[in-house]
Amino acid sequence: MYAQPGAALRPNPLTKENLIMTSTPDPGALDTLCINTIRALAMDAVEKANSGHPGAPMGLAPAGYVLFTRLMKHHPQKPDWLDRDRFVLSGGHASALLYSLLHLTGYPLCLDDLKAFRQWGSLTPGHPEHGHTPGVETTTGPLGQGFANAVGLAMAERHLAARFNQPGFAIVDHFTYVMCGDGDLMEGVAAEAASLAGHLKLGRLICLYDDNGISIEGATAITFTEDVAKRFAAYGWQVIRVAEGNDPELIFKAVKKAKADRNRPSLVIVKTQIAHGSPNKQGSHEAHGAPLGKQEVCLTKECLGLPADEFCIPQAVFDHCRGCVERGRKAEARWLRQFKAYTKAHPQLADDFVSAMSAFLPKGWDENLPVFTPDQPAVATRVASGKTLQVLARRLPTLMGGSADLAPSNNTFIKDVAEFQAGSYGGRNIRFGVREHAMGAILNGMILHNGIRPYGGTFLVFADYMRPAIRLAALMKLPVIYVFTHDSVAVGEDGPTHQPVEHVASLRAIPNLTVIRPADANETVAAWRTAIKATSGPVALILSRQNLPVLEPGPTCNLAQGAYVVADAKGQPDLILMASGSEVSLAMAAGKRLEQEGVGVRVVSMPSWELFEAAAADYRRQVLPPAVTARVAIEAGIAMGWKQYVGERGAVLGIDRFGASAPGPVVMEKLGFTVDALVDLARKVMKK
Amino acid sequence: MYAQPGAALRPNPLTKENLIMTSTPDPGALDTLCINTIRALAMDAVEKANSGHPGAPMGLAPAGYVLFTRLMKHHPQKPDWLDRDRFVLSGGHASALLYSLLHLTGYPLCLDDLKAFRQWGSLTPGHPEHGHTPGVETTTGPLGQGFANAVGLAMAERHLAARFNQPGFAIVDHFTYVMCGDGDLMEGVAAEAASLAGHLKLGRLICLYDDNGISIEGATAITFTEDVAKRFAAYGWQVIRVAEGNDPELIFKAVKKAKADRNRPSLVIVKTQIAHGSPNKQGSHEAHGAPLGKQEVCLTKECLGLPADEFCIPQAVFDHCRGCVERGRKAEARWLRQFKAYTKAHPQLADDFVSAMSAFLPKGWDENLPVFTPDQPAVATRVASGKTLQVLARRLPTLMGGSADLAPSNNTFIKDVAEFQAGSYGGRNIRFGVREHAMGAILNGMILHNGIRPYGGTFLVFADYMRPAIRLAALMKLPVIYVFTHDSVAVGEDGPTHQPVEHVASLRAIPNLTVIRPADANETVAAWRTAIKATSGPVALILSRQNLPVLEPGPTCNLAQGAYVVADAKGQPDLILMASGSEVSLAMAAGKRLEQEGVGVRVVSMPSWELFEAAAADYRRQVLPPAVTARVAIEAGIAMGWKQYVGERGAVLGIDRFGASAPGPVVMEKLGFTVDALVDLARKVMKK
Repeated sequence: MYAQPGAALRPNPLTKENLIMTSTPDPGALDTLCINTIRALAMDAVEKANSGHPGAPMGLAPAGYVLFTRLMKHHPQKPDWLDRDRFVLSGGHASALLYSLLHLTGYPLCLDDLKAFRQWGSLTPGHPEHGHTPGVETTTGPLGQGFANAVGLAMAERHLAARFNQPGFAIVDHFTYVMCGDGDLMEGVAAEAASLAGHLKLGRLICLYDDNGISIEGATAITFTEDVAKRFAAYGWQVIRVAEGNDPELIFKAVKKAKADRNRPSLVIVKTQIAHGSPNKQGSHEAHGAPLGKQEVCLTKECLGLPADEFCIPQAVFDHCRGCVERGRKAEARWLRQFKAYTKAHPQLADDFVSAMSAFLPKGWDENLPVFTPDQPAVATRVASGKTLQVLARRLPTLMGGSADLAPSNNTFIKDVAEFQAGSYGGRNIRFGVREHAMGAILNGMILHNGIRPYGGTFLVFADYMRPAIRLAALMKLPVIYVFTHDSVAVGEDGPTHQPVEHVASLRAIPNLTVIRPADANETVAAWRTAIKATSGPVALILSRQNLPVLEPGPTCNLAQGAYVVADAKGQPDLILMASGSEVSLAMAAGKRLEQEGVGVRVVSMPSWELFEAAAADYRRQVLPPAVTARVAIEAGIAMGWKQYVGERGAVLGIDRFGASAPGPVVMEKLGFTVDALVDLARKVMKK
Repeated sequence: MYAQPGAALRPNPLTKENLIMTSTPDPGALDTLCINTIRALAMDAVEKANSGHPGAPMGLAPAGYVLFTRLMKHHPQKPDWLDRDRFVLSGGHASALLYSLLHLTGYPLCLDDLKAFRQWGSLTPGHPEHGHTPGVETTTGPLGQGFANAVGLAMAERHLAARFNQPGFAIVDHFTYVMCGDGDLMEGVAAEAASLAGHLKLGRLICLYDDNGISIEGATAITFTEDVAKRFAAYGWQVIRVAEGNDPELIFKAVKKAKADRNRPSLVIVKTQIAHGSPNKQGSHEAHGAPLGKQEVCLTKECLGLPADEFCIPQAVFDHCRGCVERGRKAEARWLRQFKAYTKAHPQLADDFVSAMSAFLPKGWDENLPVFTPDQPAVATRVASGKTLQVLARRLPTLMGGSADLAPSNNTFIKDVAEFQAGSYGGRNIRFGVREHAMGAILNGMILHNGIRPYGGTFLVFADYMRPAIRLAALMKLPVIYVFTHDSVAVGEDGPTHQPVEHVASLRAIPNLTVIRPADANETVAAWRTAIKATSGPVALILSRQNLPVLEPGPTCNLAQGAYVVADAKGQPDLILMASGSEVSLAMAAGKRLEQEGVGVRVVSMPSWELFEAAAADYRRQVLPPAVTARVAIEAGIAMGWKQYVGERGAVLGIDRFGASAPGPVVMEKLGFTVDALVDLARKVMKK
């Protein structure tokens, strides 16, 4: 019911444990032993890989231990249980901490996995990878992203709680924890997300800040001397300090306090020491990103009162930590009982809940989408997109999103639907503010939660601001939808800072990302259909600001194949004109002119390279017959990559410079996007 | 002496003014008249263009007026006078305000220019463009960038003051003003830069925050409710409030107070009203990005007590504002007198000052750069870069920079040179912190100041974080140098989040940016030489983490031409292997194997497409003879774009997926970067 496409569950074979017997320590001593065991596992993993980051895991071991064993609601044997608390390790370089915790608390990650840390094909890559390792909620490493993902996760929780919870039934009722370091909090994306989280009063978001005063270049004093507590208070967060990050009781109490405030997200500032326990490296930036060294590891274990053996776990630690399995089982059982009763009391809601969590597309979801006819006035694809969104949003209650303060331009607002705000988490229109980067990372967090199909809009040129988040969506194969409007120099008067030139190409460069630049209103509808159906990666819709004529093929356009013939010669064509987006109309006009001159012209609309590459080879040869070598591609952007479609003889009409401020049609004309110029170029190619 | 490559000065012909006589108002009334005239000019410009943003200029007119006429040290007839105060309009959409101020205060921007607002070829593009319009310090529009540029400008001022000022001689002694809006302050890049500015105690940086409570989607209350004042106080800024942004006296006093604190940057929060004066649109987001409409403009002028004529300026306003010309002349004259005395007292320093400001490369600057020989052990290009940097930094006192907290990995630290810190602005090692985006924008600000040649480093994969700033450097043609290390999946254990795949291609996509990926240590030296010589755009050095053998051609490599033959067959080759960076060694090894099989192989090192495209056509044909069609390109990144060099018959060995966590050599092997695989591919191509 709520299975994710992530890693399959594997048993966690106890037989391979390297357990040692110890006398039963008293509770305080047991905590210490557990924490030091986590430190030892992290050191050993890094040492064996001869690569990695021991410092942060050692400093954060107490916080991680308290969270996983005493505070978090989770079910290690069902890492995808829906109502689990979410845990994000934003400083992904501390992965050895997470893997140690996952192993100890009973997730399907065995000791051999820890031993294979950072090796090809192992479940324990250098930075945590979602969909690869059970229990990893999101892929982290690029700093600040995990923090912002957590904001998205917490937003999703609140929205689903508002949508589904009923009196007596708290079906969605969990917390989002994120651990981050100085690096995360220096990043702008985290600042943007923190501001929004405070505005939205995400009381169930709790950030543990690893305040160790160290970054790679040295003490944070060399560059990061702001008052972080005050800054977060300014964002509207509750700020709680833990003066001694090595004391699990203090951490426990602080998080309890954090949980109690349901109106403010909480920043728990945990004063820690990097590589705590290492006599010669604790507190030093040298312990950040390199193994401690065999000798220092031994020395550290000695200081911590642990045996020198590698990867060994005291039996008492093992037993204690594995207690999470049973507690998790019980927690889920409680939830399942509740959900069963909910199903009886609110059958329709329960159904909807299951649908949402499974990302089912309801029957008929794409019926009666808008249809445009060539006799209608020209319409901008951003406008067609907005119209399509209205219809889809009525059918798909999981569809929610917004824009980075450009909703009226991106046409991303769902009419007659409330805003997602502190007072109305059930709303589906998100006001991201001028925070493109946080928007990108929050979309990732929302979709990672399950239950929501998020989209986000901005001008295409500002896709650059959110590029690191787009990359992570692609890496995690998350079907987030981007609505990028104002897609070329035809934007006009706003000038080169607002005119994309290299953006379509540079988005095509990202693996797993499907880029679709529809040529007209009907292709836009088809693009949305394709985007909604996507399951294994993000989709970027590239839309025009300016009006575009509705093309002949109309609603039967074959966008899903990435490219198709929109106008054709009788018999074998002499020339193929291929284009994407607004330039398809230009190609059509040039084609007509050339036909009048007796040239047999095929015009191919090519909205998506990725979809075309995924189409059958036969189909591709049909659309672009190898025998027809006179080819011209037209796109109002850099020519990069088109050569593969036009071949040796062909030419590309592109823009290999920045744009300029002037009315859109003037810019297009000045940069050579006219029927005359295209016809001339086509003639030249044909003469070759 | 300090001429910039910007726009040539043009006379500001008074004859075209549309001046109207008015009775001489008293000083207070004159201020109001001036301010309202600015509003009217902005409204008229937007109205005539039928496009643009009237709201912000109207709200900010009082602040702009006070700054330009009473507070700023500037010389409208010499916009490039070195010791002028710098003014950055971070919210570039308010360009009509800036253009109105530039015109009124006597910059070479005439009324016809205002009338040509947002038209092709005019000096008044939609967003301010540096190098295009005199008086525009930086290109703005993408929000947050200008704010961070201003931090760079202020850093440059402090550095140059520390380097050149002497007792009794304050040769460098100016302020940096930046105007920004809610959008700027929502952006993460501004947050990063503000944190660093506070840390660096940039007392001469003054930000006027247009607190109008409006963004495009509506009231800022819908998404931006943080306590901005408190946040900036947390960064270590002085925060000053102006309760009535329409009162020039209050603004004047606030900025005076800001200037008085030399230890903290200041945020002056000016409570304004968008479109102030417009009876039906003031205070509404509708006034943000669209003309007010003819009728509303008339009504507004009436309310403001102005004549209805378009682009008309009361004589008293004109005379008063043009007073800036004479004051500017005098200010510069004072400075010139002082500089003359300085030249006598400190001739060497004066010489150095002139050199620095003119970006002269001192004689012999590139002598005795490191030389590597093939018998030396393999060396990572990032290491060779660090060694080159040490030598260059000794010769080029203007060279300064740092890394976004990766200096030990990027090898960007200049040894035996101080850090640039609050206590030691003369230092040249900047600690940017984990703030890639701010770093990018700050580098732009520093080079815009003149007198500094800045560089910045991070991992190549995190170039994504600073992409919007890189784009602006390219757009402004600023020769910033980027040191991007860890350039491929060979990064290894850190895994896909840290392994660039699409980054080289997506940087190549940016117009005006030169991307250089050297193959070995000697090419790295040559790449630095090319980068230092660059004058018309940024240069990205793409460097390996892993060691690479030193190639045969050695120090005579022809990197400056972008590509050259590193190993050749006797006579016409049967096959060309071309590669960049670390893959050149692989191509060499495969070439040797194929030679043994009797194939005549040419190996071409191709470190830079942009340089190769700029080389003479003859040279290019010499390196890649059209007759040799059996070609294979090898690059550990996406194949995009290589087709143009390998042609129809050729093939590309690239990586069209994300990487994986494992030791670097394992990843390379698993992804097919082996001599065997390359030889196989070459054989296939030859059989075609």
